[in-house]
Amino acid sequence: MSKNISYKDAAEFFRTHDNYYILIHQNPDGDAVGSGFGLCFALRLLGKKANVMCSDPIPEKYSYILKDYEPQKFNHKTTVSTDLPDVKLLGKGLSGYSDFIELALDHHKSNTGFADLTVQDPAASSACEVLYEILSEGEIPISKETALCIYTGIATDTGCFKYECTTPRCHIIAAKLIEQYMLPIGRINRILFDIKSTEKMKFEQKVISEMQVLLDGKCAVITINHSDMEKCGVTEQDTEGVASLPMQVQGIEVGVTLREKEENRYKVSMRSAEIVDCSEICRRFGGGGHTRAAGCIIEGDADQVRMKILAAVAPILGIDLWLA
Amino acid sequence: MSKNISYKDAAEFFRTHDNYYILIHQNPDGDAVGSGFGLCFALRLLGKKANVMCSDPIPEKYSYILKDYEPQKFNHKTTVSTDLPDVKLLGKGLSGYSDFIELALDHHKSNTGFADLTVQDPAASSACEVLYEILSEGEIPISKETALCIYTGIATDTGCFKYECTTPRCHIIAAKLIEQYMLPIGRINRILFDIKSTEKMKFEQKVISEMQVLLDGKCAVITINHSDMEKCGVTEQDTEGVASLPMQVQGIEVGVTLREKEENRYKVSMRSAEIVDCSEICRRFGGGGHTRAAGCIIEGDADQVRMKILAAVAPILGIDLWLA
Repeated sequence: MSKNISYKDAAEFFRTHDNYYILIHQNPDGDAVGSGFGLCFALRLLGKKANVMCSDPIPEKYSYILKDYEPQKFNHKTTVSTDLPDVKLLGKGLSGYSDFIELALDHHKSNTGFADLTVQDPAASSACEVLYEILSEGEIPISKETALCIYTGIATDTGCFKYECTTPRCHIIAAKLIEQYMLPIGRINRILFDIKSTEKMKFEQKVISEMQVLLDGKCAVITINHSDMEKCGVTEQDTEGVASLPMQVQGIEVGVTLREKEENRYKVSMRSAEIVDCSEICRRFGGGGHTRAAGCIIEGDADQVRMKILAAVAPILGIDLWLA
Repeated sequence: MSKNISYKDAAEFFRTHDNYYILIHQNPDGDAVGSGFGLCFALRLLGKKANVMCSDPIPEKYSYILKDYEPQKFNHKTTVSTDLPDVKLLGKGLSGYSDFIELALDHHKSNTGFADLTVQDPAASSACEVLYEILSEGEIPISKETALCIYTGIATDTGCFKYECTTPRCHIIAAKLIEQYMLPIGRINRILFDIKSTEKMKFEQKVISEMQVLLDGKCAVITINHSDMEKCGVTEQDTEGVASLPMQVQGIEVGVTLREKEENRYKVSMRSAEIVDCSEICRRFGGGGHTRAAGCIIEGDADQVRMKILAAVAPILGIDLWLA
């Protein structure tokens, strides 16, 4: 059983330990990168040794965060994680650390409690919001680099302050960070949300043109196979953000994106507008996440996986799958 | 010559006048609708009579704002405008009021000073931000309807807090409005930024696939003719937001969208990333706007209009148009 601790206790933990490995989840997004490196920069400013560990390379788009980052050499003593709901998501490269995580900093309500200590706020938009609160309440200094990281995570997980999970607190933290550190948010947000390679633009066009609208127009489904990605010349990374595309269709309550992982194995990303609890449905398939955005892995071919998800969603929408 | 007045003076004006026509620009966007109706609801709450006037119908997407709005019958006495930089933009239906506008509430630095009194802040993200300051400083009550309007305008003009023009003040106002009025921002932002008709989605795909990337990859140009719109079954309204598409291409500094108004007459929308002052270029062609987003009308066929814009942009990017 993991012990839940307060922001102040977490700050105390960071002050009294040293030689950190900070683990983040595979296929890292802006909140994983932001919370991992944001914590790392804050620890280094405290005079600690710290490195961020990820089983995948950090995507090129976050190079503005890694600009001045170099891994340090030291004898590893303390293992913590940020934005990690489940040790399964560490990936193969880091799975050896699964049983030795002393402190988990998270915002997922589905956090499995794998760490000795957990500092968690399911009401927080992002792990970066939790990090901000720890540093503020614990009076740990925030440098411009850390501020940039925290903004990145909050912006990523709120869809740039667009989603329902955007609280007044998100806006207040953003206001403070922009004001104090003169963050170049126009440039950062273009990198995070707008700029795409020509290949990615063409890939998204293809995905939209092949999207299926089902369940009386309330559910849109995108299916991405390896062969589609090869044809368009895009990588796994380029498919980031695709999961929000089904939600653009008028009248849609649930958007589902199926990504082929291996033969007969799909990663399912689910989004909802106002009614469906995605986290609850994905948990039934061994996954997790948030109310409006969650994911899971389902075995089967694309048709089978799609049917499993539709069968779970239809009754919540009050639709008889066999009549729809 | 128009006289610039303070927020407090503007609040005093609103308290001491009555029977308002509030004029907004043709082809109204979220900030025009938000500032016009936001002011209207606030005036009505003060016990005043007020109607919003626009020469175009208010787009369907803003129906959450107009839900409880009914035009009132009264003898018109006072004419004000919101979010209107130039009386040319009133459109034919309202051009008769051009010389009789007593107070202009605006945030465009290109405001031509057409009103007797102008309350203006070029540092404000939106007319709605100016409206919020007037109501707050003047202690004029803000109802939930007005709060919804103000949020709509700020969100619209900052690209949902994404663009460079997003200041700490924008975030602080958003935080206060969400907190005090429990605004359903998830739903509103989906309406404002995400949801599209199938026709619009297909139209955007077509536009992206035909986009030209010019000037050493630094300028992307979209050209929209009436025939393209007819083919896809989209209206003028559906082309809203298209101007941001060229900015998605990696490496782009300037995005240009040409929309055919009549034969040999194009509306040019210009966006920039970090260097080019769009407002300055558009003013050369008799238009105006903001540093990162501006517009103008240019006569000629699509090729001629494109060349005029490229010739203006190329030297700023340090590119020789004839070698590029």
